[in-house]
Amino acid sequence: MTATLELLSTHACFGGEQRYYRHASDATGLPMRVSVYLPPKALAGAPVPALVYLAGLTCTEDTFPTKAGAQRLAAELGLALIAPDTSPRGAGIAGEAEAWDFGVGAGFYLDATQAPWSAHWRMESWLLAELLPALADELPIDGTRLGLTGHSMGGHGALTLALRHPGRFRSLSAFAPICAPTRCPWGEKAFTGYLGADRAAWAAHDATELMSGHQAAPYPAGILIDQGLDDKFLAEQLHPHLLEAACQAAGQTLTLRRHAGYDHGYYFVQTFMDDHLRHHARQLAG
Amino acid sequence: MTATLELLSTHACFGGEQRYYRHASDATGLPMRVSVYLPPKALAGAPVPALVYLAGLTCTEDTFPTKAGAQRLAAELGLALIAPDTSPRGAGIAGEAEAWDFGVGAGFYLDATQAPWSAHWRMESWLLAELLPALADELPIDGTRLGLTGHSMGGHGALTLALRHPGRFRSLSAFAPICAPTRCPWGEKAFTGYLGADRAAWAAHDATELMSGHQAAPYPAGILIDQGLDDKFLAEQLHPHLLEAACQAAGQTLTLRRHAGYDHGYYFVQTFMDDHLRHHARQLAG
Repeated sequence: MTATLELLSTHACFGGEQRYYRHASDATGLPMRVSVYLPPKALAGAPVPALVYLAGLTCTEDTFPTKAGAQRLAAELGLALIAPDTSPRGAGIAGEAEAWDFGVGAGFYLDATQAPWSAHWRMESWLLAELLPALADELPIDGTRLGLTGHSMGGHGALTLALRHPGRFRSLSAFAPICAPTRCPWGEKAFTGYLGADRAAWAAHDATELMSGHQAAPYPAGILIDQGLDDKFLAEQLHPHLLEAACQAAGQTLTLRRHAGYDHGYYFVQTFMDDHLRHHARQLAG
Repeated sequence: MTATLELLSTHACFGGEQRYYRHASDATGLPMRVSVYLPPKALAGAPVPALVYLAGLTCTEDTFPTKAGAQRLAAELGLALIAPDTSPRGAGIAGEAEAWDFGVGAGFYLDATQAPWSAHWRMESWLLAELLPALADELPIDGTRLGLTGHSMGGHGALTLALRHPGRFRSLSAFAPICAPTRCPWGEKAFTGYLGADRAAWAAHDATELMSGHQAAPYPAGILIDQGLDDKFLAEQLHPHLLEAACQAAGQTLTLRRHAGYDHGYYFVQTFMDDHLRHHARQLAG
């Protein structure tokens, strides 16, 4: 198999390596970026389980490794960390980088069906059909032991991709996720642009709607979500109570922790990162 | 006493608060910036010891709190973290922001004596005469229990300020510091601009020269320095071996750890941050 990952830089970190790659993607038709942390155990040659982290609006593949403080414990747990970029870049679509909540930096982890976005904005296909297989092929990562998490728009991505592709991920969590994008301004704007005005097509990319379609818990070991109560986006954009009700109806165990005083940023994310790493490591073991 | 610190933002983090302040400085004649992490113990009202971290070229007060991963253990140890900006900003000196290694973002933690810099570039006076007293006055920080550390240009700042002001700091460490600025291009450029062409004035701001002037160990509990061996600046700019020799001659215990594979960036800094926090917490206890 031809290598599709080009190493851009690597940095020793807690005995492992924080790496940055360019990935040649057919799905998006553009070079995509991803960061990968390999723990010491992987550098020693053993394939390790990996946690995929999907970042939020305006972020890049660099946000998680620089700001989330996850490498220390990941090194200890023997867990690789994969952080893809949040959208294609350089497509040349008019106005693609003008809004902070749509277009560049705002891929919403789905395949757009509407022109002009449908030509390149194919994040779901890129991640699942190309990037994750390539990482398992070309790096000491065990592609059968993947966990999925994310923050905000990336929390939406984690929940929806894990629910749309049962069996693909063994463990699931999220930080302050957009839980019901069909019922919030961020989601309505993005889905109108990427999926079109017909709301019938939207439900398949809404975590609450997807969970409502389940008769049994898709993640029987439980889903972990942390949410700050001083998060300025909580009331209008995130709606964790809707997902909570859907989980309850489906019999899905959800540990939804609401934290007084915490906001939407990476000081919140880093505070609870270790708990998420341990949640995933437990389910990815063996 | 009139408050000189203006709170710009605060973020819950590991049970404490990561804060950003603007400080009204007479020394520099400009509003200066500083970030402060207060651990849970300080929020409960108890004055806590603090570690001051001086950042390197191009950095700001935001670099350390976002990239160094220090808050988790600082919360546990009950240690405040103080990270000042690296230079005055907005002075309006022609060309002040044109070079990445001189002027804005490159204050070198000294008081400039040469026009036009001498009017505003007075980092040593700002830090020692104004900022640290203000932080002890206005926040639950014990100004008699301060440790000092820094990275690269900030490592130079930590070493030189701690050696120029004996008794002011109880503990000292550095990450990849510029150890002999009178003998490297970064230092020669900065000292020429800030202190003038007469090299006689330079020695008072060179850690190796300052250590060479000591007959007994100024930090008898020992200085900790970490240095990566894949650091691209090591051979030309940093010269830790010169400081090592000066420490040996002065009877100063120096733990200088050289790490294969590590570079000059924050993946290196975060890897060894916990060791530095423990080094300082031990000496600042009680």
